[in-house]
Amino acid sequence: MDNLGIDFVSELVGTALLVLLGCGVVANVALTKSKGFNGGTLMVNIGWGLAVFAGVIVSYASGAHLNPAVTLGLVANGATHFGGANSQVDVNFLTIIAYIGAQLIGAIIGAVFVWLAYKQHFDEEPEPANKLGVFSTGPSIRSYGWNLITEIIGTFVLVFVVIGFSRHNDTGGLNALDALPVALLVIGIGASLGGPTGYAINPARDLGPRIAHFILPIKGKGSSDWSYSWVPVVGPIIGGVIAGFAAIPLLPILT
Amino acid sequence: MDNLGIDFVSELVGTALLVLLGCGVVANVALTKSKGFNGGTLMVNIGWGLAVFAGVIVSYASGAHLNPAVTLGLVANGATHFGGANSQVDVNFLTIIAYIGAQLIGAIIGAVFVWLAYKQHFDEEPEPANKLGVFSTGPSIRSYGWNLITEIIGTFVLVFVVIGFSRHNDTGGLNALDALPVALLVIGIGASLGGPTGYAINPARDLGPRIAHFILPIKGKGSSDWSYSWVPVVGPIIGGVIAGFAAIPLLPILT
Amino acid sequence: MDNLGIDFVSELVGTALLVLLGCGVVANVALTKSKGFNGGTLMVNIGWGLAVFAGVIVSYASGAHLNPAVTLGLVANGATHFGGANSQVDVNFLTIIAYIGAQLIGAIIGAVFVWLAYKQHFDEEPEPANKLGVFSTGPSIRSYGWNLITEIIGTFVLVFVVIGFSRHNDTGGLNALDALPVALLVIGIGASLGGPTGYAINPARDLGPRIAHFILPIKGKGSSDWSYSWVPVVGPIIGGVIAGFAAIPLLPILT
Amino acid sequence: MDNLGIDFVSELVGTALLVLLGCGVVANVALTKSKGFNGGTLMVNIGWGLAVFAGVIVSYASGAHLNPAVTLGLVANGATHFGGANSQVDVNFLTIIAYIGAQLIGAIIGAVFVWLAYKQHFDEEPEPANKLGVFSTGPSIRSYGWNLITEIIGTFVLVFVVIGFSRHNDTGGLNALDALPVALLVIGIGASLGGPTGYAINPARDLGPRIAHFILPIKGKGSSDWSYSWVPVVGPIIGGVIAGFAAIPLLPILT
Repeated sequence: MDNLGIDFVSELVGTALLVLLGCGVVANVALTKSKGFNGGTLMVNIGWGLAVFAGVIVSYASGAHLNPAVTLGLVANGATHFGGANSQVDVNFLTIIAYIGAQLIGAIIGAVFVWLAYKQHFDEEPEPANKLGVFSTGPSIRSYGWNLITEIIGTFVLVFVVIGFSRHNDTGGLNALDALPVALLVIGIGASLGGPTGYAINPARDLGPRIAHFILPIKGKGSSDWSYSWVPVVGPIIGGVIAGFAAIPLLPILT
Repeated sequence: MDNLGIDFVSELVGTALLVLLGCGVVANVALTKSKGFNGGTLMVNIGWGLAVFAGVIVSYASGAHLNPAVTLGLVANGATHFGGANSQVDVNFLTIIAYIGAQLIGAIIGAVFVWLAYKQHFDEEPEPANKLGVFSTGPSIRSYGWNLITEIIGTFVLVFVVIGFSRHNDTGGLNALDALPVALLVIGIGASLGGPTGYAINPARDLGPRIAHFILPIKGKGSSDWSYSWVPVVGPIIGGVIAGFAAIPLLPILT
Repeated sequence: MDNLGIDFVSELVGTALLVLLGCGVVANVALTKSKGFNGGTLMVNIGWGLAVFAGVIVSYASGAHLNPAVTLGLVANGATHFGGANSQVDVNFLTIIAYIGAQLIGAIIGAVFVWLAYKQHFDEEPEPANKLGVFSTGPSIRSYGWNLITEIIGTFVLVFVVIGFSRHNDTGGLNALDALPVALLVIGIGASLGGPTGYAINPARDLGPRIAHFILPIKGKGSSDWSYSWVPVVGPIIGGVIAGFAAIPLLPILT
Repeated sequence: MDNLGIDFVSELVGTALLVLLGCGVVANVALTKSKGFNGGTLMVNIGWGLAVFAGVIVSYASGAHLNPAVTLGLVANGATHFGGANSQVDVNFLTIIAYIGAQLIGAIIGAVFVWLAYKQHFDEEPEPANKLGVFSTGPSIRSYGWNLITEIIGTFVLVFVVIGFSRHNDTGGLNALDALPVALLVIGIGASLGGPTGYAINPARDLGPRIAHFILPIKGKGSSDWSYSWVPVVGPIIGGVIAGFAAIPLLPILT
């Protein structure tokens, strides 16, 4: 397999694992009769953070973006290549499409496995909104403009700090704990900025599972809420790109 | 003691500690009058993760499998030897039996100490199901097929990511924090995939304590639920073996 | 930009991020209709700790004080220079003013973004005290003298242990996990000493957002409680300076 | 100051900080009108773990025992010297007395500062048992024999795994994160084995604050429950010594 092929598989597998564990914790907390029912927001935040941790571990080959907002933020930041030492690729239109495509496909696959793991609980859940909530985010107070701002702010923090991480890594991805900082960051963003919109902060994480929700024969499912679906796609991309540009003049403080 | 003897003791002690702390946190949360009563699912997840942390610390000699699904997953992955630098053994039928036997015996011993530590609370607990729940997992919605799928998915994640860890360890087990990644992973799997079956994801962790529950003179205990007992044994083995095979072609993304 | 300029921007950006995530978690837990509503004290503690984590990552250039009590504590401890290897500055009156000014301005900016991220929830929140609580701390039992003592003790712990950290850092800030110890410390101080006053332990973190609360056109806001505002400024400064002095004779135990 | 003097101060300061933060989190959760009131068992466990983290950071000089059960467990394990590279002392009767004395005095001092930090909340708390509970542990179900067994088991785990840690430390205490493993271990022991007795697992942590409770003019305080006070002293010592002896033949699995 050539390097771009390796990176494609890496992003796909990593994002699938991210969504499997990430949407999984929402299923555990939200679906009736689940052992984690009503487990609380902190549990959801920690679950998503550790989902990132696991996803990053299995996608070092591609640099573990797992998120189009990260990929595009790095492009805005001026990245000339993606991927680890053994699978480096030049950044160009094809690379970007391959990364984002892999992330989206991986997210759909991850969501299918969440459905399988919680199949009985989906079947017995009476409330359609709880089922969609396992797959995709939705706003507490619907207001596309303000929801967009919240997603932009959250994703800005994610991508800006991730760029900061990349400047302080003396083991070069050789240690499993190198995946911990971004996991902690995601827990923090979720706890702090997740209140209004549920912190998609990742177009693939939201759109992929929404597509899965739309396609899968989920018993008693309701609408996939397509009218909101552009917010957790557009907001994170804007936030990520702003972060990538902002980091250029601010590099001296990050190094 | 020869190397296999050292590894046997290492797996036995590590798994005993794993089960002591792991089943201990369930006792704390589930048993009447315990200070942690109703402490919540996140506390149980964190408790199990830190149980893994402690167990791994005291079984570096054998490579800290502590789980037949890990042992068999590594065999499927093509491992030719087990154990750390000072106690390496070749992988063969005897080694595999020694590892799994040690894990099972250790799990039984750990469960006995949980019972001793919470003796008074077991005696005063009115509900037999809560007592069994301290020892072994059970499904929220009983459905052997779907329960099996949930355990397969959870254990696949465990073993697949553990194989990923082993490719990113630049300290070679010389630092106590090297036990942290797998602890975080277990917290994450519990939070995300523990809802339907309570995430055994380890045949020894479930069968060993079930045997202890069956044997021990626990006051007012009920059934040991043998009819379900094969699910958290077979499911994890299938999931671990699939992960071991799947990791072979995917090694380039894990390295 | 000269070194002091870099450090100024570094403290400003770091403190803005600290306050954005820190006050953000309070908004998530305190404001009506937020997804984290009633998420609990531990979630607030963890959110603040991870806010410190993110803030430190993006302000290594200046040494990541992010807190006038830390800056003044280090002065009391006898620091002769501030900042990292690439942006070192001598400690003098101008430096100190620049650091503290940057922290205060950053805190105001961070608070503005919290308001933007939670705009709809501020608008729909009926209780003015909850709105102020997102920005600034207040005492559970108002008693300026005792509240001051609590803030002094909490900040003493913060600055004393931070000085301890600086003596045990073998990677010199090259690894992203170097920001973790102070994050854990802040979680601990919040959980343990945050009960009476909400642990400002940082004059900029409290005064900056209070100024933002005073200035911003927050719908239905009440008083900014200026009568209490000096306590979380004076207390932390006293605590930090005492810690800086105390650490001098105690250095042998910290090294 | 000679080496034993340094170690004495180190143990005293470290244990004072341990108890300040450790008993502090109980105050936050237990005392009326505190912001963390009813914050839950997990918060208490995490608070105690991070109290250990902070205490260890400021007592590397003496090896950060902070606990007579650790000191005596290491003696049983055959330790010939205590303390770090710059303040090493031979193990003899005087050394042991100095360590344990410093721990006890430190614990008393820490407890006094908890009382000061929460003074108003102690004054307004109506229930005397809640006040004592901030200082010292008590059993959920009083039964000296079984309570003793629980403390023995918990402390065995603590000391046995701590000895395991000491065999896997490649940075030699040069990194602040070296204090994290023992913090995680204490969180785990608390979550898993704290249900019946509140996990003293440290004679100084329990007896020191009990003495402070007895002496301090706490408004409306009740009994210091001296009849139970020997359990969290004798139990941890037995558990620690057993762990020290047990680790000798088991060293091959810990190395």
